[in-house]
Amino acid sequence: MNKGTLVVFSGPSGCGKDTILQKYLDGREDVFLSISATTRSPRPGEVDGVNYFFLSEEQFKKKIAHDGMLEYACYCGNYYGTPRDSVYQKLNAGIDVILEIEVQGALQIKERCPEAAMIFVMPPSMEELRSRLVGRGTEDMETVEKRLSQAREEMKAAPQYDYIIVNNTIEQAAEDLHAVLRSQRLKTENQKEFLNEVFHYDA
Amino acid sequence: MNKGTLVVFSGPSGCGKDTILQKYLDGREDVFLSISATTRSPRPGEVDGVNYFFLSEEQFKKKIAHDGMLEYACYCGNYYGTPRDSVYQKLNAGIDVILEIEVQGALQIKERCPEAAMIFVMPPSMEELRSRLVGRGTEDMETVEKRLSQAREEMKAAPQYDYIIVNNTIEQAAEDLHAVLRSQRLKTENQKEFLNEVFHYDA
Repeated sequence: MNKGTLVVFSGPSGCGKDTILQKYLDGREDVFLSISATTRSPRPGEVDGVNYFFLSEEQFKKKIAHDGMLEYACYCGNYYGTPRDSVYQKLNAGIDVILEIEVQGALQIKERCPEAAMIFVMPPSMEELRSRLVGRGTEDMETVEKRLSQAREEMKAAPQYDYIIVNNTIEQAAEDLHAVLRSQRLKTENQKEFLNEVFHYDA
Repeated sequence: MNKGTLVVFSGPSGCGKDTILQKYLDGREDVFLSISATTRSPRPGEVDGVNYFFLSEEQFKKKIAHDGMLEYACYCGNYYGTPRDSVYQKLNAGIDVILEIEVQGALQIKERCPEAAMIFVMPPSMEELRSRLVGRGTEDMETVEKRLSQAREEMKAAPQYDYIIVNNTIEQAAEDLHAVLRSQRLKTENQKEFLNEVFHYDA
């Protein structure tokens, strides 16, 4: 059996990452959305092992020390990271694993797992991103401008990714994601077992 | 506008290349199946510029001398090759171009156009290929064995390709081909113009 593909999925806030993943994952069982570990406290309704793996700072640091985190970062005094074991269990079982992570963590993955497919989601234009943020009606103009300038900053990392998905529509973006994952499985380096089987027939 | 992708499509005879292409290309206008040039005489019904570009040996050799062939080979005393101009006109117009060519020509393309996506089509197993060849009922057992041993020889080139499509069913293989072509367009190096546009907004 061929191994699953590790997929890194990033993009500026407001670009629709969650909605694309939700659309793409709906009904699929051969793809797993990785669950992050964090030292922050659970919010009401959050379940350990579903939304996050909730760890103490001591547990988290121990994992780092034993190379148990594929990537991690510290935001606002809390640690966030991707536990190595849960990812590799799935990959070894032939299941693709998607990590929805920030640029900082993504670049750690790129360094440690060069075979990972790095995907960056972008809005069709800054104008479109602005009108989406305004359209939500949940934020005042000052906050919109702040988020736009943050997005512009985050998007500078795009050239370091392997693939760019432009979120014109959710359907198109989800199909793009599907095309990338399907093509990863077709890569020659991921078909070594198949090639072995074929070439050893009646050898 | 982003450039089209150059796609090399090879595989042993009997693996279903033509049927997969036919299925995939049906109704598409954004993909062009390249037309080869040859010095062999047209067969009844063959049309110049449709089935092949029919050239004299002098014309063909002149093209080679002026770097006008992306790849070429000589079989049974006749030249076959891919005219460079017709391919690049399409690519520059944003149209993907598929070259259905033999391994020898494919490896020339890989050397000269490292950005090309190299796809190799394979039967699910040698056993399945044998039963497909026998099932046609058009060849005696000696010919079947000869074609099988030829296929085994051709398939040794598979590891030099970027992607392997296993022809379990025509539908699945055509969808695999679609996934590879779609993912090529998403590659960061093929989205430079989009990135430029986004980053120069309100700069």
